[in-house]
Amino acid sequence: MPRFADHSERRTAIADALINVIAQRGIEAVSIRSIAAEAGVSAGTVQHYFSSKQEIFDFAVASLRVRASARIAEHLEVQASSPGASPGRQVARTVLKQVLPLDDASLRESKVALALHAHAVTHGGASSAQVADWEELRRFVVEEIHGGSDLLFADRMVMATALMGAAEGLSILALAGYVSKSEAAEAFDLLDRMLGN
Amino acid sequence: MPRFADHSERRTAIADALINVIAQRGIEAVSIRSIAAEAGVSAGTVQHYFSSKQEIFDFAVASLRVRASARIAEHLEVQASSPGASPGRQVARTVLKQVLPLDDASLRESKVALALHAHAVTHGGASSAQVADWEELRRFVVEEIHGGSDLLFADRMVMATALMGAAEGLSILALAGYVSKSEAAEAFDLLDRMLGN
Repeated sequence: MPRFADHSERRTAIADALINVIAQRGIEAVSIRSIAAEAGVSAGTVQHYFSSKQEIFDFAVASLRVRASARIAEHLEVQASSPGASPGRQVARTVLKQVLPLDDASLRESKVALALHAHAVTHGGASSAQVADWEELRRFVVEEIHGGSDLLFADRMVMATALMGAAEGLSILALAGYVSKSEAAEAFDLLDRMLGN
Repeated sequence: MPRFADHSERRTAIADALINVIAQRGIEAVSIRSIAAEAGVSAGTVQHYFSSKQEIFDFAVASLRVRASARIAEHLEVQASSPGASPGRQVARTVLKQVLPLDDASLRESKVALALHAHAVTHGGASSAQVADWEELRRFVVEEIHGGSDLLFADRMVMATALMGAAEGLSILALAGYVSKSEAAEAFDLLDRMLGN
Protein backbone atom coordinates (compact mmCIF):
# COMPACT_ATOMS: atom_id res chain seq x y z
CA MET A 1 0.00 0.00 0.00
CA PRO A 2 1.41 3.45 -0.82
CA ARG A 3 2.51 5.33 2.27
CA PHE A 4 0.28 8.35 1.77
CA ALA A 5 -2.87 6.49 0.73
CA ASP A 6 -5.85 8.27 2.21
CA HIS A 7 -8.43 6.70 4.50
CA SER A 8 -10.81 5.63 1.75
CA GLU A 9 -8.03 4.10 -0.38
CA ARG A 10 -6.77 2.10 2.59
CA ARG A 11 -10.24 0.81 3.34
CA THR A 12 -10.66 -0.18 -0.31
CA ALA A 13 -7.30 -1.98 -0.33
CA ILE A 14 -8.30 -3.91 2.82
CA ALA A 15 -11.70 -4.83 1.32
CA ASP A 16 -9.89 -5.98 -1.86
CA ALA A 17 -7.72 -8.20 0.30
CA LEU A 18 -10.86 -9.71 1.86
CA ILE A 19 -12.25 -10.38 -1.62
CA ASN A 20 -8.98 -12.07 -2.65
CA VAL A 21 -8.94 -14.27 0.45
CA ILE A 22 -12.53 -15.42 -0.23
CA ALA A 23 -11.91 -15.98 -3.96
CA GLN A 24 -8.79 -18.04 -3.27
CA ARG A 25 -9.61 -19.93 -0.08
CA GLY A 26 -13.29 -19.45 0.75
CA ILE A 27 -15.03 -17.41 3.41
CA GLU A 28 -13.89 -19.69 6.21
CA ALA A 29 -10.30 -18.56 5.61
CA VAL A 30 -11.24 -14.98 6.50
CA SER A 31 -9.69 -13.55 9.65
CA ILE A 32 -8.18 -10.20 10.57
CA ARG A 33 -4.81 -11.94 10.28
CA SER A 34 -5.42 -13.44 6.82
CA ILE A 35 -6.81 -10.14 5.50
CA ALA A 36 -3.82 -8.25 6.89
CA ALA A 37 -1.36 -10.74 5.33
CA GLU A 38 -3.10 -10.48 1.97
CA ALA A 39 -3.10 -6.67 2.12
CA GLY A 40 0.53 -6.61 3.24
CA VAL A 41 -0.21 -4.69 6.42
CA SER A 42 -0.35 -5.53 10.12
CA ALA A 43 -3.44 -6.79 11.89
CA GLY A 44 -3.36 -3.55 13.88
CA THR A 45 -3.64 -1.54 10.67
CA VAL A 46 -6.68 -3.52 9.61
CA GLN A 47 -8.25 -2.89 13.00
CA HIS A 48 -7.42 0.80 12.73
CA TYR A 49 -9.51 1.10 9.55
CA PHE A 50 -12.33 -1.27 10.46
CA SER A 51 -13.80 -1.84 13.88
CA SER A 52 -14.92 -5.40 13.10
CA LYS A 53 -14.74 -8.20 10.54
CA GLN A 54 -18.42 -7.54 9.80
CA GLU A 55 -17.60 -3.95 8.88
CA ILE A 56 -15.07 -5.22 6.31
CA PHE A 57 -17.70 -7.61 4.93
CA ASP A 58 -20.21 -4.76 4.56
CA PHE A 59 -17.65 -2.52 2.88
CA ALA A 60 -16.66 -5.35 0.49
CA VAL A 61 -20.30 -5.97 -0.47
CA ALA A 62 -20.73 -2.26 -1.25
CA SER A 63 -17.45 -2.27 -3.17
CA LEU A 64 -18.51 -5.27 -5.31
CA ARG A 65 -21.77 -3.49 -6.07
CA VAL A 66 -19.93 -0.36 -7.20
CA ARG A 67 -17.77 -2.45 -9.55
CA ALA A 68 -20.79 -4.25 -11.00
CA SER A 69 -22.51 -0.89 -11.54
CA ALA A 70 -19.44 0.43 -13.32
CA ARG A 71 -19.48 -2.58 -15.66
CA ILE A 72 -23.19 -2.04 -16.31
CA ALA A 73 -22.68 1.67 -17.02
CA GLU A 74 -19.89 0.83 -19.47
CA HIS A 75 -22.11 -1.65 -21.34
CA LEU A 76 -24.93 0.87 -21.48
CA GLU A 77 -22.67 3.51 -23.01
CA VAL A 78 -21.58 1.06 -25.70
CA GLN A 79 -25.20 0.22 -26.41
CA ALA A 80 -26.42 3.81 -26.45
CA SER A 81 -23.80 4.69 -29.05
CA SER A 82 -24.62 1.72 -31.30
CA PRO A 83 -27.11 2.27 -34.13
CA GLY A 84 -30.62 0.92 -33.65
CA ALA A 85 -30.28 0.62 -29.88
CA SER A 86 -33.67 0.27 -28.21
CA PRO A 87 -33.61 1.97 -24.84
CA GLY A 88 -36.05 0.12 -22.57
CA ARG A 89 -35.76 -3.65 -22.75
CA GLN A 90 -32.14 -3.60 -23.82
CA VAL A 91 -31.13 -1.69 -20.72
CA ALA A 92 -32.88 -4.08 -18.39
CA ARG A 93 -31.39 -7.11 -20.12
CA THR A 94 -27.95 -5.63 -19.82
CA VAL A 95 -28.44 -5.13 -16.11
CA LEU A 96 -29.71 -8.65 -15.59
CA LYS A 97 -27.11 -10.26 -17.81
CA GLN A 98 -24.45 -8.66 -15.64
CA VAL A 99 -25.78 -10.80 -12.80
CA LEU A 100 -25.00 -13.87 -14.88
CA PRO A 101 -21.23 -14.32 -14.70
CA LEU A 102 -20.83 -14.86 -18.43
CA ASP A 103 -17.40 -13.31 -18.74
CA ASP A 104 -14.34 -14.20 -16.72
CA ALA A 105 -14.02 -10.66 -15.42
CA SER A 106 -17.21 -10.97 -13.40
CA LEU A 107 -16.90 -14.70 -12.62
CA ARG A 108 -14.47 -14.23 -9.74
CA GLU A 109 -16.51 -11.39 -8.24
CA SER A 110 -19.72 -13.38 -8.59
CA LYS A 111 -18.21 -16.23 -6.59
CA VAL A 112 -17.20 -13.86 -3.83
CA ALA A 113 -20.61 -12.15 -3.94
CA LEU A 114 -22.28 -15.55 -3.49
CA ALA A 115 -20.07 -16.33 -0.50
CA LEU A 116 -20.92 -12.94 1.05
CA HIS A 117 -24.60 -13.57 0.29
CA ALA A 118 -24.52 -16.90 2.08
CA HIS A 119 -22.68 -15.24 4.95
CA ALA A 120 -25.42 -12.62 5.25
CA VAL A 121 -28.12 -15.30 5.25
CA THR A 122 -26.57 -17.13 8.23
CA HIS A 123 -25.87 -13.82 10.01
CA GLY A 124 -29.23 -12.13 10.18
CA GLY A 125 -29.90 -11.37 6.51
CA ALA A 126 -28.92 -8.56 4.19
CA SER A 127 -28.37 -5.13 5.72
CA SER A 128 -30.97 -2.44 5.19
CA ALA A 129 -28.52 -0.61 2.89
CA GLN A 130 -28.21 -3.75 0.74
CA VAL A 131 -31.97 -4.20 0.61
CA ALA A 132 -32.38 -0.55 -0.40
CA ASP A 133 -29.79 -0.98 -3.18
CA TRP A 134 -31.51 -4.10 -4.45
CA GLU A 135 -34.90 -2.39 -4.34
CA GLU A 136 -33.49 0.46 -6.41
CA LEU A 137 -32.30 -2.03 -9.03
CA ARG A 138 -35.70 -3.71 -9.08
CA ARG A 139 -37.47 -0.37 -9.58
CA PHE A 140 -35.10 0.35 -12.44
CA VAL A 141 -35.93 -3.00 -14.06
CA VAL A 142 -39.67 -2.38 -13.54
CA GLU A 143 -39.46 1.00 -15.24
CA GLU A 144 -37.14 0.05 -18.08
CA ILE A 145 -38.26 -3.39 -19.07
CA HIS A 146 -41.91 -2.59 -19.50
CA GLY A 147 -41.58 1.11 -20.20
CA GLY A 148 -44.02 0.88 -23.07
CA SER A 149 -46.47 -1.53 -21.50
CA ASP A 150 -49.81 -0.71 -19.94
CA LEU A 151 -49.58 -3.43 -17.31
CA LEU A 152 -50.37 -2.58 -13.72
CA PHE A 153 -47.40 -1.57 -11.62
CA ALA A 154 -47.99 -4.53 -9.31
CA ASP A 155 -47.76 -6.99 -12.23
CA ARG A 156 -44.58 -5.39 -13.47
CA MET A 157 -43.09 -5.74 -9.99
CA VAL A 158 -43.83 -9.48 -10.04
CA MET A 159 -42.22 -9.77 -13.49
CA ALA A 160 -39.12 -7.86 -12.42
CA THR A 161 -38.83 -10.02 -9.28
CA ALA A 162 -39.14 -13.19 -11.37
CA LEU A 163 -36.45 -12.07 -13.81
CA MET A 164 -34.07 -10.95 -11.09
CA GLY A 165 -34.59 -14.19 -9.18
CA ALA A 166 -33.96 -16.21 -12.33
CA ALA A 167 -30.80 -14.25 -13.12
CA GLU A 168 -29.55 -14.81 -9.56
CA GLY A 169 -30.37 -18.53 -9.52
CA LEU A 170 -29.08 -19.31 -13.01
CA SER A 171 -25.90 -17.48 -12.10
CA ILE A 172 -25.41 -19.74 -9.08
CA LEU A 173 -26.20 -22.92 -11.02
CA ALA A 174 -23.57 -21.89 -13.58
CA LEU A 175 -21.04 -20.90 -10.92
CA ALA A 176 -21.37 -24.25 -9.15
CA GLY A 177 -21.10 -26.11 -12.45
CA TYR A 178 -24.63 -27.57 -12.58
CA VAL A 179 -25.25 -25.93 -15.95
CA SER A 180 -22.93 -24.39 -18.54
CA LYS A 181 -22.79 -20.63 -19.00
CA SER A 182 -24.55 -20.97 -22.35
CA GLU A 183 -27.36 -23.06 -20.82
CA ALA A 184 -27.85 -20.39 -18.16
CA ALA A 185 -27.91 -17.64 -20.78
CA GLU A 186 -30.36 -19.57 -22.96
CA ALA A 187 -32.73 -20.19 -20.05
CA PHE A 188 -32.58 -16.53 -19.06
CA ASP A 189 -33.29 -15.45 -22.63
CA LEU A 190 -36.35 -17.72 -22.72
CA LEU A 191 -37.79 -16.08 -19.59
CA ASP A 192 -36.92 -12.64 -20.82
CA ARG A 193 -38.71 -13.24 -24.13
CA MET A 194 -41.77 -14.70 -22.44
CA LEU A 195 -42.07 -11.91 -19.92
CA GLY A 196 -41.31 -9.25 -22.48
CA ASN A 197 -44.46 -9.95 -24.47
CA MET B 1 -24.75 -40.17 20.89
CA PRO B 2 -25.92 -43.64 21.95
CA ARG B 3 -23.04 -45.98 22.75
CA PHE B 4 -23.97 -48.64 20.22
CA ALA B 5 -24.82 -46.37 17.31
CA ASP B 6 -23.59 -47.97 14.13
CA HIS B 7 -21.16 -46.39 11.69
CA SER B 8 -23.83 -44.77 9.50
CA GLU B 9 -25.74 -43.33 12.48
CA ARG B 10 -22.56 -41.82 13.88
CA ARG B 11 -21.71 -40.23 10.55
CA THR B 12 -25.23 -38.83 10.31
CA ALA B 13 -25.00 -37.40 13.83
CA ILE B 14 -21.70 -35.73 12.97
CA ALA B 15 -23.12 -34.29 9.73
CA ASP B 16 -26.13 -33.02 11.72
CA ALA B 17 -23.72 -31.28 14.08
CA LEU B 18 -22.05 -29.62 11.07
CA ILE B 19 -25.45 -28.44 9.85
CA ASN B 20 -26.23 -27.01 13.30
CA VAL B 21 -22.92 -25.16 13.49
CA ILE B 22 -23.51 -23.57 10.07
CA ALA B 23 -27.14 -22.67 10.83
CA GLN B 24 -26.19 -21.06 14.13
CA ARG B 25 -22.83 -19.45 13.43
CA GLY B 26 -22.12 -19.63 9.72
CA ILE B 27 -19.72 -21.74 7.69
CA GLU B 28 -16.67 -19.91 8.98
CA ALA B 29 -17.34 -21.33 12.45
CA VAL B 30 -16.86 -24.87 11.13
CA SER B 31 -13.86 -26.79 12.44
CA ILE B 32 -13.28 -30.37 13.54
CA ARG B 33 -13.34 -28.97 17.09
CA SER B 34 -16.64 -27.05 16.75
CA ILE B 35 -18.32 -30.02 15.04
CA ALA B 36 -17.11 -32.35 17.78
CA ALA B 37 -18.35 -30.00 20.51
CA GLU B 38 -21.76 -29.71 18.84
CA ALA B 39 -22.02 -33.49 18.45
CA GLY B 40 -20.86 -34.04 22.03
CA VAL B 41 -17.92 -36.21 21.02
CA SER B 42 -14.15 -35.77 20.89
CA ALA B 43 -12.29 -34.37 17.88
CA GLY B 44 -10.66 -37.80 17.58
CA THR B 45 -14.08 -39.42 17.18
CA VAL B 46 -14.97 -37.01 14.36
CA GLN B 47 -11.68 -37.83 12.66
CA HIS B 48 -12.34 -41.54 13.11
CA TYR B 49 -15.55 -41.27 11.09
CA PHE B 50 -14.44 -38.73 8.51
CA SER B 51 -10.99 -38.38 7.01
CA SER B 52 -11.39 -34.64 6.29
CA LYS B 53 -13.63 -31.63 6.81
CA GLN B 54 -14.48 -31.81 3.11
CA GLU B 55 -15.78 -35.35 3.57
CA ILE B 56 -18.16 -34.08 6.28
CA PHE B 57 -19.31 -31.28 3.95
CA ASP B 58 -20.02 -33.78 1.17
CA PHE B 59 -21.89 -36.09 3.53
CA ALA B 60 -23.95 -33.15 4.86
CA VAL B 61 -24.89 -32.05 1.34
CA ALA B 62 -26.07 -35.57 0.52
CA SER B 63 -27.94 -35.71 3.84
CA LEU B 64 -29.76 -32.41 3.15
CA ARG B 65 -30.74 -33.73 -0.27
CA VAL B 66 -32.19 -36.90 1.26
CA ARG B 67 -34.26 -34.81 3.68
CA ALA B 68 -35.57 -32.56 0.91
CA SER B 69 -36.48 -35.62 -1.16
CA ALA B 70 -38.35 -37.09 1.81
CA ARG B 71 -40.36 -33.87 2.15
CA ILE B 72 -41.12 -33.92 -1.58
CA ALA B 73 -42.22 -37.56 -1.45
CA GLU B 74 -44.52 -36.77 1.49
CA HIS B 75 -46.13 -33.88 -0.42
CA LEU B 76 -46.59 -36.04 -3.48
CA GLU B 77 -48.36 -38.74 -1.47
CA VAL B 78 -50.75 -36.15 -0.04
CA GLN B 79 -51.43 -34.85 -3.55
CA ALA B 80 -51.85 -38.26 -5.14
CA SER B 81 -54.46 -39.16 -2.56
CA SER B 82 -56.42 -35.94 -2.96
CA PRO B 83 -59.34 -35.91 -5.41
CA GLY B 84 -58.79 -34.22 -8.77
CA ALA B 85 -55.01 -34.36 -8.50
CA SER B 86 -53.34 -33.80 -11.88
CA PRO B 87 -50.14 -35.81 -12.04
CA GLY B 88 -47.76 -33.95 -14.35
CA ARG B 89 -47.54 -30.24 -13.66
CA GLN B 90 -48.54 -30.57 -10.05
CA VAL B 91 -45.65 -32.90 -9.34
CA ALA B 92 -43.09 -30.58 -10.89
CA ARG B 93 -44.48 -27.57 -9.04
CA THR B 94 -44.28 -29.46 -5.78
CA VAL B 95 -40.66 -30.29 -6.42
CA LEU B 96 -39.76 -26.73 -7.31
CA LYS B 97 -41.77 -25.18 -4.50
CA GLN B 98 -39.74 -27.28 -2.08
CA VAL B 99 -36.70 -25.34 -3.25
CA LEU B 100 -38.42 -22.16 -2.13
CA PRO B 101 -38.15 -22.14 1.67
CA LEU B 102 -41.78 -21.25 2.24
CA ASP B 103 -42.18 -23.16 5.48
CA ASP B 104 -40.05 -22.83 8.57
CA ALA B 105 -39.14 -26.52 8.46
CA SER B 106 -37.16 -26.05 5.25
CA LEU B 107 -35.97 -22.50 5.96
CA ARG B 108 -33.12 -23.53 8.26
CA GLU B 109 -31.97 -26.27 5.89
CA SER B 110 -32.14 -23.91 2.92
CA LYS B 111 -29.82 -21.47 4.67
CA VAL B 112 -27.33 -24.23 5.35
CA ALA B 113 -27.67 -25.52 1.78
CA LEU B 114 -26.88 -22.03 0.47
CA ALA B 115 -23.78 -21.83 2.67
CA LEU B 116 -22.63 -25.25 1.43
CA HIS B 117 -23.37 -24.15 -2.14
CA ALA B 118 -21.22 -21.05 -1.76
CA HIS B 119 -18.52 -23.19 -0.17
CA ALA B 120 -18.54 -25.53 -3.20
CA VAL B 121 -18.30 -22.57 -5.57
CA THR B 122 -15.13 -21.25 -3.93
CA HIS B 123 -13.69 -24.79 -3.64
CA GLY B 124 -13.73 -26.12 -7.18
CA GLY B 125 -17.47 -26.40 -7.82
CA ALA B 126 -20.09 -29.01 -7.07
CA SER B 127 -18.93 -32.63 -6.92
CA SER B 128 -19.78 -34.95 -9.79
CA ALA B 129 -22.23 -36.77 -7.49
CA GLN B 130 -24.03 -33.47 -6.77
CA VAL B 131 -24.15 -32.60 -10.45
CA ALA B 132 -25.56 -36.06 -11.23
CA ASP B 133 -28.24 -35.63 -8.53
CA TRP B 134 -29.19 -32.22 -9.88
CA GLU B 135 -29.32 -33.56 -13.44
CA GLU B 136 -31.66 -36.30 -12.28
CA LEU B 137 -33.98 -33.69 -10.77
CA ARG B 138 -33.91 -31.67 -13.96
CA ARG B 139 -34.80 -34.72 -16.07
CA PHE B 140 -37.67 -35.37 -13.69
CA VAL B 141 -38.93 -31.81 -14.12
CA VAL B 142 -38.55 -32.07 -17.91
CA GLU B 143 -40.61 -35.27 -18.03
CA GLU B 144 -43.27 -34.26 -15.53
CA ILE B 145 -43.93 -30.64 -16.26
CA HIS B 146 -44.57 -31.03 -19.93
CA GLY B 147 -45.62 -34.67 -19.95
CA GLY B 148 -48.49 -33.87 -22.28
CA SER B 149 -46.73 -31.37 -24.52
CA ASP B 150 -45.27 -32.02 -27.94
CA LEU B 151 -42.38 -29.59 -27.52
CA LEU B 152 -38.92 -30.72 -28.51
CA PHE B 153 -36.87 -32.24 -25.71
CA ALA B 154 -34.27 -29.49 -26.08
CA ASP B 155 -36.90 -26.78 -25.51
CA ARG B 156 -38.24 -28.59 -22.47
CA MET B 157 -34.72 -28.74 -21.06
CA VAL B 158 -34.39 -24.97 -21.41
CA MET B 159 -37.75 -24.50 -19.67
CA ALA B 160 -36.82 -26.83 -16.83
CA THR B 161 -33.48 -25.05 -16.41
CA ALA B 162 -35.22 -21.66 -16.32
CA LEU B 163 -37.72 -22.82 -13.68
CA MET B 164 -35.09 -24.46 -11.52
CA GLY B 165 -32.86 -21.42 -11.76
CA ALA B 166 -35.75 -19.14 -10.83
CA ALA B 167 -36.70 -21.33 -7.86
CA GLU B 168 -33.08 -21.30 -6.66
CA GLY B 169 -32.65 -17.54 -7.08
CA LEU B 170 -36.01 -16.54 -5.61
CA SER B 171 -35.27 -18.79 -2.67
CA ILE B 172 -32.01 -16.94 -2.02
CA LEU B 173 -33.60 -13.50 -2.43
CA ALA B 174 -36.21 -14.53 0.14
CA LEU B 175 -33.63 -16.07 2.50
CA ALA B 176 -31.53 -12.91 2.46
CA GLY B 177 -34.58 -10.73 3.01
CA TYR B 178 -34.61 -8.90 -0.33
CA VAL B 179 -38.16 -10.09 -1.02
CA SER B 180 -40.85 -11.59 1.19
CA LYS B 181 -41.72 -15.27 0.94
CA SER B 182 -45.02 -14.40 -0.69
CA GLU B 183 -43.35 -12.17 -3.29
CA ALA B 184 -40.99 -15.04 -4.14
CA ALA B 185 -43.89 -17.49 -4.43
CA GLU B 186 -45.89 -15.08 -6.58
CA ALA B 187 -42.98 -14.52 -8.97
CA PHE B 188 -42.38 -18.26 -9.23
CA ASP B 189 -46.06 -18.88 -9.96
CA LEU B 190 -45.97 -16.31 -12.75
CA LEU B 191 -43.06 -18.08 -14.46
CA ASP B 192 -44.62 -21.46 -13.91
CA ARG B 193 -47.88 -20.32 -15.52
CA MET B 194 -46.12 -18.72 -18.46
CA LEU B 195 -43.91 -21.72 -19.14
CA GLY B 196 -46.72 -24.16 -18.55
CA ASN B 197 -48.69 -22.91 -21.53
